[in-house]
Amino acid sequence: MHTPSLIERKRDGHAHSADELRALVLGFTRGEVPDYQMAAWLMAVYLRGMTREETALLTGIMAESGDTLDLSGLPRTVDKHSTGGVGDKTSLVLAPMMAACGLTVAKMSGRGLAHTGGTIDKLESIPGWQDQLSTERFVEQARRIGLALVGQSKNLAPADGLLYALRDVTATVPSVPLIASSIMSKKLAAGAHSIILDVKVGAGAFMETLERATELAEAMIDIGHRNGRIVRAILTNMDAPLGRAAGNSLEVREAIETLNGGGPDDLRELCLTLCRQALLANGFSGAEADSLPPRVLGDGSALAKLRAFVVAQGGDGAYIDQPERLDVAPIEAPVNAPQSGFLSGLDALAVGRAVLAVGGGREVKGAPIDHGVGVTLLAKPGDAVTAGKPVAVLHVRSANAVTEQAARLIRAGLKVSLNPQPRSPLVLKVID
Amino acid sequence: MHTPSLIERKRDGHAHSADELRALVLGFTRGEVPDYQMAAWLMAVYLRGMTREETALLTGIMAESGDTLDLSGLPRTVDKHSTGGVGDKTSLVLAPMMAACGLTVAKMSGRGLAHTGGTIDKLESIPGWQDQLSTERFVEQARRIGLALVGQSKNLAPADGLLYALRDVTATVPSVPLIASSIMSKKLAAGAHSIILDVKVGAGAFMETLERATELAEAMIDIGHRNGRIVRAILTNMDAPLGRAAGNSLEVREAIETLNGGGPDDLRELCLTLCRQALLANGFSGAEADSLPPRVLGDGSALAKLRAFVVAQGGDGAYIDQPERLDVAPIEAPVNAPQSGFLSGLDALAVGRAVLAVGGGREVKGAPIDHGVGVTLLAKPGDAVTAGKPVAVLHVRSANAVTEQAARLIRAGLKVSLNPQPRSPLVLKVID
Repeated sequence: MHTPSLIERKRDGHAHSADELRALVLGFTRGEVPDYQMAAWLMAVYLRGMTREETALLTGIMAESGDTLDLSGLPRTVDKHSTGGVGDKTSLVLAPMMAACGLTVAKMSGRGLAHTGGTIDKLESIPGWQDQLSTERFVEQARRIGLALVGQSKNLAPADGLLYALRDVTATVPSVPLIASSIMSKKLAAGAHSIILDVKVGAGAFMETLERATELAEAMIDIGHRNGRIVRAILTNMDAPLGRAAGNSLEVREAIETLNGGGPDDLRELCLTLCRQALLANGFSGAEADSLPPRVLGDGSALAKLRAFVVAQGGDGAYIDQPERLDVAPIEAPVNAPQSGFLSGLDALAVGRAVLAVGGGREVKGAPIDHGVGVTLLAKPGDAVTAGKPVAVLHVRSANAVTEQAARLIRAGLKVSLNPQPRSPLVLKVID
Repeated sequence: MHTPSLIERKRDGHAHSADELRALVLGFTRGEVPDYQMAAWLMAVYLRGMTREETALLTGIMAESGDTLDLSGLPRTVDKHSTGGVGDKTSLVLAPMMAACGLTVAKMSGRGLAHTGGTIDKLESIPGWQDQLSTERFVEQARRIGLALVGQSKNLAPADGLLYALRDVTATVPSVPLIASSIMSKKLAAGAHSIILDVKVGAGAFMETLERATELAEAMIDIGHRNGRIVRAILTNMDAPLGRAAGNSLEVREAIETLNGGGPDDLRELCLTLCRQALLANGFSGAEADSLPPRVLGDGSALAKLRAFVVAQGGDGAYIDQPERLDVAPIEAPVNAPQSGFLSGLDALAVGRAVLAVGGGREVKGAPIDHGVGVTLLAKPGDAVTAGKPVAVLHVRSANAVTEQAARLIRAGLKVSLNPQPRSPLVLKVID
């Protein structure tokens, strides 16, 4: 097909056929459609939009641009995706919970970039744990334990990686059909029959308003349905970090605490809500979906799943039993409250950047990270704070100028009010 | 400046500052802004538009991206531009007319591409005539004769050439601000103080409706004014070819016929109208603008200017005195009327493509052409035609399959009606 004519169709607001989208997306992935033509097309998509049908077709084509995983032999497969947050160790808690409830979690996860962490980096805090499995071992482990979690295949939806790189430099990132197809192409390729989405809303998130986040969630649910998957989404607040720990080892410790029936209230609530949706998506009754998730946290069965999974992938199970043995950087540098009152703001992005600054994240793909550094939040929004007393603690290898800079970042993101403020709810909306 | 942020501004419908446009356009021309970013920006411009002020700034920046000609030492300099037509030998007649009226025509012209001819190709039908002059000789000749006409400098508004090549493959050609800036950047760089525009309207033209053509003309006039030039435009019908000749030598013959006071009515009318506007743009009174143009056609002074100009640039003046000596291909192949009646349609594009097919034009830049081939139209829209009698004659080197194909092209573009149709006016609108 003549590429300029295809660009012209989108420019003039027409909907593409499957053949047209295939010519553009697969042509681009093979290097036959040059990046300047794809860039013009992406801007036309940004400004003209895409119908629901087009978006679903586009996503399916992107999913099939590389390797796809066939999980159809496994029962009740479930995948989970978060649009990215700070201190978001949800997968570490939720995946064993879902497995303990009888679902099969056979999932690929990413590594962290910039201020957002990645599940694979967090798991690598556990000595011995490996993120690579052959497809046969991956499927076998998922069948046996109900839980297998590996690093993302390089050839998973390669069209998405290429399109994203181009969008990043052509001001075409924040388009709902393009974001939705980018996320869902990888989920479709990864093969799970049900997909639970955690769409973050707030200043530090991709979607800054509830309205835009709802639009994105509905677009992703529609893509899933049109491609034969069951999808449910919840919209959650991401103004402050989730839980009290940010940084890899610290987050694993907090996840284990939560799987032991404790942990921070917001993290526990989020995991119960997501697990409930995963059960509903897989045919469980409302009563089961209400009772099973707290039960697997209370009786140790979810924690046992995590231990079995870690050991199956080469990790040392003793660290799950004694999480205090996980390496955490020895020096603690406090971040003090600027005045007394009630904490009304704790900027998630600022905390994420502070962890990045002290070496707990990476600016560019492939860079090494320090799993032991991070931040512990001593107060969360709504809590009382006292001038000069610590609100957070930085865990670092040495107290230096970088530590000071990281502390300043967090301090600049604090808001203290004289009167108590109502706590904002964590779960804003459930869409199914 | 951060290029994605600049693209984002246009994507979101904001107007660029001069500094922003300079960063984009000159960065792209120097190869620092990659084509994929420029392509996304062009699509954003296509869909979001540009203010009049932005368009004028953009054009000025494009004009200054390469060589600029300083004609400020010459009196009453005038340039003319046509948006492209078939059989459009207007410049060959108008330029000597304007010089004979006392204006200074120091002009660069292009070569033909695809179905449109170019003034330089037409002049090269005259043995010896050269399209290259040093800047000193060019200015000196313009001062002495009032007429110098050369091929376009390779470094004239290079930003335009680069942008046009990218627009051509990214479906961003038909945008009024982009077309207007493309045309006017070269006119601004070429240095004339007054510019007369002939905007073609019709099926074979860039602008298919009077409304769009008016929009383009007004945009170009505004660009000129904001850059300190005097600009006037006329909108003319381009459904049928101009005059009766299409093909290089044939058109020079017709131009000389017109400069001798004869020639086809439409060509004569167009040249009188354009010359009138050129005089008004240079401060001549309405009475002078009415009387001078027909006078220089009647008294031989315009023809004398053409002869002096041709000789000054190395051409043999004898061909101007005896145009029948110009080489025209010896074989005449008729194109007959399909039925008797009145000619109501004679597709300009079809005639242009027929000339191209028999070797009178080029598909790619730099290809050689045969100056002697072409088409003579025996009937024009409104004329009576008889079934089986010729409406047009092809002038070719040999009658072969290609000749047959060219004849079929013209025949397919003929419309014959049983009743006489009103002739459509040539000059549709004058805008100043």
